[in-house]
Amino acid sequence: MRTELDLLRREMAEEGIDAYLIVSDDDHASEYVGEYYKCRAFVSGFDGSAGTLVVLREEAGLWTDGRYFIQAEQQLAGSGITLYRSGENGVPAIEEFLASKLSEGMTLGFDGTTVSMALWRRIVRKLSDRQISFRTTVDLCDRIWQSRPALPAHPAWVLEERYAGESSRQKLKRVRESLRQERADYLLVTALDEIAWLLNIRGDDIAYSPVVLSFFLLGQEEAFWYVQPEAVTPQVKETVIGLGIECRPYREIYKRLAGLPAGTSIRLDDSATNVTLYQAIPRGVEKKKGSTPIQLMKAVKNEVEQENMRKAHYQDGIALTRLIYWLKQQPDKKMLTELDVCRKLEEYRREGEHYLGQSFAPIAACGAHGAIVHYEPDEKSSIPLDNEGFLLLDTGGHYLEGTTDVTRTITLGPLTQEQRHHYTAVLKGNLNLGAAVFKYGCTGVNLDYLARAALWDEGLDYNHGTGHGVGYLLNVHEEPNAIRFRERGGSGSVLEEGMITSNEPGLYLEGRYGIRLENLILCRKRQENEYGTFLEFETLTLVPFDMEAVLWDELSPREQSLLTAYQQRVYDALKDGLPQEAAEWLRGQILQ
Amino acid sequence: MRTELDLLRREMAEEGIDAYLIVSDDDHASEYVGEYYKCRAFVSGFDGSAGTLVVLREEAGLWTDGRYFIQAEQQLAGSGITLYRSGENGVPAIEEFLASKLSEGMTLGFDGTTVSMALWRRIVRKLSDRQISFRTTVDLCDRIWQSRPALPAHPAWVLEERYAGESSRQKLKRVRESLRQERADYLLVTALDEIAWLLNIRGDDIAYSPVVLSFFLLGQEEAFWYVQPEAVTPQVKETVIGLGIECRPYREIYKRLAGLPAGTSIRLDDSATNVTLYQAIPRGVEKKKGSTPIQLMKAVKNEVEQENMRKAHYQDGIALTRLIYWLKQQPDKKMLTELDVCRKLEEYRREGEHYLGQSFAPIAACGAHGAIVHYEPDEKSSIPLDNEGFLLLDTGGHYLEGTTDVTRTITLGPLTQEQRHHYTAVLKGNLNLGAAVFKYGCTGVNLDYLARAALWDEGLDYNHGTGHGVGYLLNVHEEPNAIRFRERGGSGSVLEEGMITSNEPGLYLEGRYGIRLENLILCRKRQENEYGTFLEFETLTLVPFDMEAVLWDELSPREQSLLTAYQQRVYDALKDGLPQEAAEWLRGQILQ
Repeated sequence: MRTELDLLRREMAEEGIDAYLIVSDDDHASEYVGEYYKCRAFVSGFDGSAGTLVVLREEAGLWTDGRYFIQAEQQLAGSGITLYRSGENGVPAIEEFLASKLSEGMTLGFDGTTVSMALWRRIVRKLSDRQISFRTTVDLCDRIWQSRPALPAHPAWVLEERYAGESSRQKLKRVRESLRQERADYLLVTALDEIAWLLNIRGDDIAYSPVVLSFFLLGQEEAFWYVQPEAVTPQVKETVIGLGIECRPYREIYKRLAGLPAGTSIRLDDSATNVTLYQAIPRGVEKKKGSTPIQLMKAVKNEVEQENMRKAHYQDGIALTRLIYWLKQQPDKKMLTELDVCRKLEEYRREGEHYLGQSFAPIAACGAHGAIVHYEPDEKSSIPLDNEGFLLLDTGGHYLEGTTDVTRTITLGPLTQEQRHHYTAVLKGNLNLGAAVFKYGCTGVNLDYLARAALWDEGLDYNHGTGHGVGYLLNVHEEPNAIRFRERGGSGSVLEEGMITSNEPGLYLEGRYGIRLENLILCRKRQENEYGTFLEFETLTLVPFDMEAVLWDELSPREQSLLTAYQQRVYDALKDGLPQEAAEWLRGQILQ
Repeated sequence: MRTELDLLRREMAEEGIDAYLIVSDDDHASEYVGEYYKCRAFVSGFDGSAGTLVVLREEAGLWTDGRYFIQAEQQLAGSGITLYRSGENGVPAIEEFLASKLSEGMTLGFDGTTVSMALWRRIVRKLSDRQISFRTTVDLCDRIWQSRPALPAHPAWVLEERYAGESSRQKLKRVRESLRQERADYLLVTALDEIAWLLNIRGDDIAYSPVVLSFFLLGQEEAFWYVQPEAVTPQVKETVIGLGIECRPYREIYKRLAGLPAGTSIRLDDSATNVTLYQAIPRGVEKKKGSTPIQLMKAVKNEVEQENMRKAHYQDGIALTRLIYWLKQQPDKKMLTELDVCRKLEEYRREGEHYLGQSFAPIAACGAHGAIVHYEPDEKSSIPLDNEGFLLLDTGGHYLEGTTDVTRTITLGPLTQEQRHHYTAVLKGNLNLGAAVFKYGCTGVNLDYLARAALWDEGLDYNHGTGHGVGYLLNVHEEPNAIRFRERGGSGSVLEEGMITSNEPGLYLEGRYGIRLENLILCRKRQENEYGTFLEFETLTLVPFDMEAVLWDELSPREQSLLTAYQQRVYDALKDGLPQEAAEWLRGQILQ
């Protein structure tokens, strides 16, 4: 039993709280959060990026998704916390669990600044038929977490227009125009990447996500940025003042919303907004709900961003290809660990121009580690490589020219026929999705089949989405575009010209090995005629596939030519930027 | 200007009605309706199966979908009615049109027994911000349609269990169990095919649809069938009495619903239920909404139905193959008309066992007629065939063993390379969709791409869905299963084992020719393992593709083997049932 759990229960008893909910979010429903917010990891010991803890007086449960089943099982062992595998048959949702455990007169508590309205609505709906009390503004973790880190507060900086491709002035104009059309007086922006995009400002308050912890409130004539003073450097201050934006203290947004005059209206993302913020808005203020207009504007990359992204992928391709070549040259790979590979790659990336850092925690997973979908090596878990089988390497970088996210599965030595067969099946998915031609109006749901067909044909599958949107020097996972086989949470997003999405089929054999092949693909127009507008993808990623792992004869003629064309393209693009031996090796990867 | 329009306007003036709405439905939202219900055709002259007429004092508009644009344009010429092409850019929806035309104090009228709640809700939502009066129970057409046919009223008959595969007693039990689970006191069944399925009774009240005009009200202890006395033959009467069902006069359902006791609850399909029926339910009765439990039960064919369907398709394959062979033997096809082909096919079908009639109005479309998606030849429009190009033949039959729906595009003589190229592209879609292997949870939206990929790749497309559900000796179009590229009206239906769907990609070049290739495909289990349940399709249709139209080299090796396997399968299945010369010709169709 964890001490932290025990301490939490004492606080619960003191406050008369029967169930306490701890989520993974910050005030902004961010995917990654600052250390200050990691209450769930502090109490439960499970430190994956997604998970929700429910603590009752006598039991406790943690919910996480397929990416983290194995990790959570290990980290929760002996904790007194039961693992609930979200989405598996017979596993209750959090709100169903609460409904089965809470009876009349009991109290559910949580820190509402970290709970999204989406989750809160699901819970309220489920518990509405009984008399349950809610304490929505009680942060019990704060009381027991003695060495809780401070709120992150780092200097922000201005992203020049030659990188952003559109001035903040112009973006503010577009967003205000959209507000006018919706007849909304204010727009509340809580998503940190949306604020960063709108202001062309970046920061360093969240690991892997170059954003500034802040809120933004926009009106037609006024604009307020609720931000910690540490972020506002003189350069940043000058920029925002020039845009007519007033800087206010970070937490003041809560009071400001409470003071909005009745009869006005406010546009907000009612799923991602936190409960405390939402409840601060007076009843007389009309809430206009749905994802903000910024979300789609940000997802559609402008011409400058697209061209920059190509440059970022060139830099990234050089680093990755050098890494793969270096690895292939090692006479005994057992002398290297998974972490060594990550460090070497980071070293190569740092040699590239305008590299700012990793876009997420790197995954270098050897052998059976590859089957743990979101395994991240650390000092404890990192193992030596092997002279056979696969290394799965999923990493990404931030450049001034954009964000990358790439996975290659690298042959370390002899492979079995089965391994090569599986690699080839995953590769088929990647090639076929990357070559899709589709009519405007399609969502990722229409195209997901292409990535899975070769696996499904043999009764195989992977337990994650095929693709996620990727930000421009912003979050490596962004909405609304996605490629999935089942729509999640309502309407799918139509794929628009300029959107960048990942293309990452995989296959995971628990205890044996994992394979994933990931490129970023840019949606662009192919032709427009009387039948409609037809779109296609341009693959941005420039890193060779591993020809040692390919069973050439299992590829269709079309797949063979897609593969050859890609390998040739990578070679042509990178050859002059690579050391000569690496370039020669790369030329050898064009054909098997 | 049509006289009927003028007469209708006089009645509108008399009643103080400013806008009058005429839809295509009967009391049951049926796709095909009895002659009695064809008010829209009577007033407008447009007799396609789908269309809505809005008559204002000074103007009138007719809305129809892509299948009928060309036909409607022709039939509305000179009528004084404007054609609105639903779904095209800039074309207002009916409710938007009404909102733009109706102002404060005006009155909208319609016969609520024929208007679905789905349409009504859309209209009310759009007009809710102004003071419009509604007259929902006024049938003006009835006053001006002097020679209006009577309500259809034909004898019903009992479908034996060896055809239905499940007794009505058992079906009633399953439906009642489902009601219990939903805690609903009553189920209102308005869809005619659902009633026919539930009672294992068929009828003849609607062309192409072997159903009985009736309503059904089911409780746990009681059941009422609201039906015209002409339908209830002694055999039918005995059967339903044996099931504990009471027969009541058809229109009495309206009064019966009005008398439901407060505090009870009724399950109903709130989209398809007509406005008058819906409004008859007292306020104190709780309405539990959504498609009825019968819809899904009916769509999932049981083992007996599946096996019977195979037999029906054998009979149908014999008739179609004889027809194609006969046509190919004609020395001068100009001596035949489109209608001649339909008659000949009907003659061959009638030679088959247990053939009951056509499942929809047959389409035999030569040359440019093929580009009119739902062209149906009649005495006026039927043209002679040609000795070149294509004949598009889309027909279907009802057998005691089930319902068929098949389209073949038949080569009448020399083809251009472009025609063969287009035929081959459509064929690719049919073959690839038919060979899909997919994980349980997929909807038709996941698979539609397979049918369109070869066309989209060249910037081509077809303006209709790829597949629709097909009933068992019931409606040739049934919900909920469908294969479309965009979800229509809410949530897509997961493809379940036992569902039968059409697979019908096409291509239409206005003024030139049309191609469509349609098979029915049965969803069945392929394997189940730790990755999930995997499904595949069995193609039920047994009619050869036209090898004269195929460009073999444009098919991938996989497509070539799929085509050869299908042609071989058709030959093996049919050869002993065909006249010898036809069988020999069919053998020649296996390879090109």
